[in-house]
Amino acid sequence: MKENRIYNFNAGPAALPLEVLEEIKDSFLNFGGSGMSITEISHRSTLFDNVINDAIARTRRLLKLDDRFHVLFIQGGASLQFCMIPLNLLKEGDSADYVNTGTWATKAIKEAEILGKTINIVASSEDKNFSYIPKKMSFNRDAVYTHITSNNTIKGTQWPFYPETGGIPLVADMSSDFMSRPFDVDKFGLIYAGAQKNIGPAGVCMVIIRDDMLERVPDTLPSMLKYTTYASKNSMFNTPPCFAIYMVQLVMKWLEESVGGLEKMARMNQTKARTLYEAIDSSDFYQGTAETDSRSLMNVTFRLPDETLEKQFVEQALKNGMGGLKGHRSVGGCRASIYNATQLAAIEALVDFMKHFEQKNG
Amino acid sequence: MKENRIYNFNAGPAALPLEVLEEIKDSFLNFGGSGMSITEISHRSTLFDNVINDAIARTRRLLKLDDRFHVLFIQGGASLQFCMIPLNLLKEGDSADYVNTGTWATKAIKEAEILGKTINIVASSEDKNFSYIPKKMSFNRDAVYTHITSNNTIKGTQWPFYPETGGIPLVADMSSDFMSRPFDVDKFGLIYAGAQKNIGPAGVCMVIIRDDMLERVPDTLPSMLKYTTYASKNSMFNTPPCFAIYMVQLVMKWLEESVGGLEKMARMNQTKARTLYEAIDSSDFYQGTAETDSRSLMNVTFRLPDETLEKQFVEQALKNGMGGLKGHRSVGGCRASIYNATQLAAIEALVDFMKHFEQKNG
Repeated sequence: MKENRIYNFNAGPAALPLEVLEEIKDSFLNFGGSGMSITEISHRSTLFDNVINDAIARTRRLLKLDDRFHVLFIQGGASLQFCMIPLNLLKEGDSADYVNTGTWATKAIKEAEILGKTINIVASSEDKNFSYIPKKMSFNRDAVYTHITSNNTIKGTQWPFYPETGGIPLVADMSSDFMSRPFDVDKFGLIYAGAQKNIGPAGVCMVIIRDDMLERVPDTLPSMLKYTTYASKNSMFNTPPCFAIYMVQLVMKWLEESVGGLEKMARMNQTKARTLYEAIDSSDFYQGTAETDSRSLMNVTFRLPDETLEKQFVEQALKNGMGGLKGHRSVGGCRASIYNATQLAAIEALVDFMKHFEQKNG
Repeated sequence: MKENRIYNFNAGPAALPLEVLEEIKDSFLNFGGSGMSITEISHRSTLFDNVINDAIARTRRLLKLDDRFHVLFIQGGASLQFCMIPLNLLKEGDSADYVNTGTWATKAIKEAEILGKTINIVASSEDKNFSYIPKKMSFNRDAVYTHITSNNTIKGTQWPFYPETGGIPLVADMSSDFMSRPFDVDKFGLIYAGAQKNIGPAGVCMVIIRDDMLERVPDTLPSMLKYTTYASKNSMFNTPPCFAIYMVQLVMKWLEESVGGLEKMARMNQTKARTLYEAIDSSDFYQGTAETDSRSLMNVTFRLPDETLEKQFVEQALKNGMGGLKGHRSVGGCRASIYNATQLAAIEALVDFMKHFEQKNG
């Protein structure tokens, strides 16, 4: 491949569109004719206003957001959102429902509990090592929100569709499948996504928040921990992470103009995932770890007959130009993360390699 | 100049060393032979471990930090530190001293007060529009720390040397003069600096914290707001802002290897500032706004006879390849920010332009 690039199956930070990387490279010493790098321009300049406003406008169009929704850029990743959400949305006496579908959901619950908030776990798949998405759950009528993790990067599961909560706003950590498929935003009070999987580099988290959620924000929080600060200042109360936002802008442009929108992106992602799961299912050598109806289209987790073979698989794949196939350190095994920017050609190459590896070792 | 670059006098984000920008550009599609961009590699990889550990090791050498000090990378800029510092260091019944030297110090005080902490303003230069650094102040013996802002970007003042607090640890916002001169770290319990002025791009804040300050951190804080979380996980409890840290690493490498350390950097900065202040002082047309003994070596603030001329000055300077000379929107006038990466040649070009502009308009 160009410049000796490899097929990148990293779980995050992850593969980004080559045309985005090339545009950044080409303009890195002189951005937009300014005579400065994107990393050197003022965030109070027209040049940067255009960047952040275009990133927001494209996000709005891609997700069909109406005026009730505000698109914010916040630092600290999804992990900071784990505490900001209960700090901003839950007053004394309020409670929220959480669905526990894996490592990240568990962390979100833990941070809310550190704050002493009242959290109800309305469903969990912990009984089977988080290998499925719970199907039955009953929500508390007086919950302020229901928190879900739309895709579970580590366990390789994903909500195939979002739960009916009876009007309670969903709050969703979409870090690892944001912008991979269209969805009905109407159900959501707040959506957040660390950029470093599907929409950019590490260092910025996109937060989409609805008016009625903003109204809950207490005045007594520090400025940097209040959603209202970001909403009222177009995410520029202080210096924002300009480079990361710029890269998000370019990824959104790629999604709109090169991919052609979220419907097309979703179809491509379905084809990619199907190709890989079919290779796994047609073999006794490879074993998927997630239950079939809960499988993630973003993170394909699988095991080989033993750990020695898994180690060899990851090493030999890298030698063949395919990186990032080791499973998360907490679960082991193998994992191919196939986010938006991973092309079908990468999956086809991986499937070929899997067949060869099985022939040699099966 | 190369690639039509301009002389960049921005206050932050600001000029960065050209050799750093060129290295990033050259390797942007394939970092360290990985076949991936720096924005695509895993933060759990050896490649990234080398980046963050080298950034820390160079920081330690440049500042001569001993083992009591921990170098952390935190998102959210100095503005998040304004609340993290009192949250982490002040327990019920504790108090801290703050010196108010301008806009950013005022914000630091405000955020501590929002949290209901006991803050004593032991000195302020607000009486003269923050145009000087207070010389006399008495500290409270039982204060946990004394907070200062080492350089005031907007008002163009800088502490020429740090105050004697009688053993109370200094906590310093060094965002706009960090790494511009050597200093005795022994007096400091905590130092923080948003990267986007002297050490990198927007999107990461370096925090240097001493053991005894870490011991004050309460268990009850959310993980992402506790310094201990960052100290115990080498700033990788969650995905760090990898690209920004990488850029900091390269700037530290430039400081060590190309500049030759902080003593040399300080001498260069003195020469640069003297050249510009002499041009201002030798003219009746230009008027410095900071008191002479409090002048910043980083941000040189000055006025012209009237606002129309100031506007023309900024516009014509840009046409002549010198950008970012407008004063902060809150104070007006002109400002040349001359951080580490701004070369003497840029200042000489500016001084030439100033002379021509005065001849035509004086």
